[in-house]
Amino acid sequence: MNVKVGICQIKISKNKQENYKTVENAVQEVVEKGAKIIVLPECWNSPYGTENFKDYAEYVYDYNENTIGFMSKIAKKYKIYLIGGSIPTYEIKAKTRYYNTCICYNPEGNRIGTYNKIHLFDINIKDKIKFSESDVLSPGDSPCLLHTEYGKIGIGICYDLRFPRLADIYSTMKADILIYPGAFSIYTGEMHWTLLQKARALDNQVHVITCSPARDMEAEYKAYGHSSVVSPWGKVIYEADEKSQNFVIELQDQDKIYVREQINILKHRKNL
Amino acid sequence: MNVKVGICQIKISKNKQENYKTVENAVQEVVEKGAKIIVLPECWNSPYGTENFKDYAEYVYDYNENTIGFMSKIAKKYKIYLIGGSIPTYEIKAKTRYYNTCICYNPEGNRIGTYNKIHLFDINIKDKIKFSESDVLSPGDSPCLLHTEYGKIGIGICYDLRFPRLADIYSTMKADILIYPGAFSIYTGEMHWTLLQKARALDNQVHVITCSPARDMEAEYKAYGHSSVVSPWGKVIYEADEKSQNFVIELQDQDKIYVREQINILKHRKNL
Repeated sequence: MNVKVGICQIKISKNKQENYKTVENAVQEVVEKGAKIIVLPECWNSPYGTENFKDYAEYVYDYNENTIGFMSKIAKKYKIYLIGGSIPTYEIKAKTRYYNTCICYNPEGNRIGTYNKIHLFDINIKDKIKFSESDVLSPGDSPCLLHTEYGKIGIGICYDLRFPRLADIYSTMKADILIYPGAFSIYTGEMHWTLLQKARALDNQVHVITCSPARDMEAEYKAYGHSSVVSPWGKVIYEADEKSQNFVIELQDQDKIYVREQINILKHRKNL
Repeated sequence: MNVKVGICQIKISKNKQENYKTVENAVQEVVEKGAKIIVLPECWNSPYGTENFKDYAEYVYDYNENTIGFMSKIAKKYKIYLIGGSIPTYEIKAKTRYYNTCICYNPEGNRIGTYNKIHLFDINIKDKIKFSESDVLSPGDSPCLLHTEYGKIGIGICYDLRFPRLADIYSTMKADILIYPGAFSIYTGEMHWTLLQKARALDNQVHVITCSPARDMEAEYKAYGHSSVVSPWGKVIYEADEKSQNFVIELQDQDKIYVREQINILKHRKNL
């Protein structure tokens, strides 16, 4: 079933309330253009950085409070599926572990999925970028597949894009769409962001959607931007630049059907 | 360890003896440029086509006869590792099954690997290309990893490129290089040939090498050509055009070492 997806490449501030306002404006904008599934970027209620995760983290089971409550209200108010980018969370009140978490809602505002980032972003590129999420965060362990009337949606976050096994699992679960909120760095973004999306799309014959924060040259961590939509043929349907922008793309179901009829790798692949 | 690889994008004729001559000339050419590992294209001793496989097939255990004997002699004569592209074979004298087989030799002329194509090429793209290897061939079931002083080499053939699981298995076996003799069609080649090689290289942080026959517009099946070498960073180091050409590329071991130090996905990936 064709569906319009709204991608909100917003600029993140240090102020949670301000971020809520930015998100609601972005959601309103893409809803007006017909979006039924709306995607927020990775780490959108706080600046991205290991020094911020603990301060901004929320108790993941507070269904009606703070950022989590806000997302539920927005999904219900605008009658949309909301793929809530990610926010830092903890799941035990003693705060023994923190996660990078994508929480997802249906148009009634019910939570339908909670995904903790499985592959933590630990890289060290000489003179370019050093980052170690695992200094503060713990990895998730479970894939998260959403069932919607528009198809099955598999969720990953950012660095997860580099791992074909997660995408393969979703594909085995018969996913139609993979959505990765993500904030690649400028350096790795230029090298690998588009290639990885095209690979995940073509290898599994699914639509791949990414949603990055807009680039903020005053922020500590400078995101690549370039939120994109890639077809099951591995072709880029739309790729944003690095600036703030909210856009809507209609996913054509026939793209997926045609490629699977013609080059049926999902039928041909083997459990080696 | 750095090593020069010679890739022979040769034009295939209907005559086996003529093909032997073309191969020996190509091997000689790249050996003179320093190649220590030499790759032949998919289906190089016969025109590619289901109508030809049975006629050209050889008994895979005739170590010293025909094409198989020829390859052994060439490897020994030029003191090279020979990745013998592929030829049609059968392994039971009753010819109950045929395979698309890559046979590999060390510089002493000893056979060190026999790989039967696992994923058979069955596609049907309306008005573009229809092909069904499985009408005649049976699929292999076993990966084939070669141990050389230049690193471990995993072998796939053509359509195998589309399957991340095979590359993942080689990567788990600590492969340094993946080599895919392959004859993509012009249509799928333009769409996916380069993307797939970059994906397999980046996902597993290995060098990926492909070797296609040169395009022959008078042949029944028109190969894409464009034999390539891709770095462990997912960058194309060299990509041929569609014409006959034999070229040598030195693989830099440091490419692999740097990417694995800086973005260590092989350490980070999980058995999900």
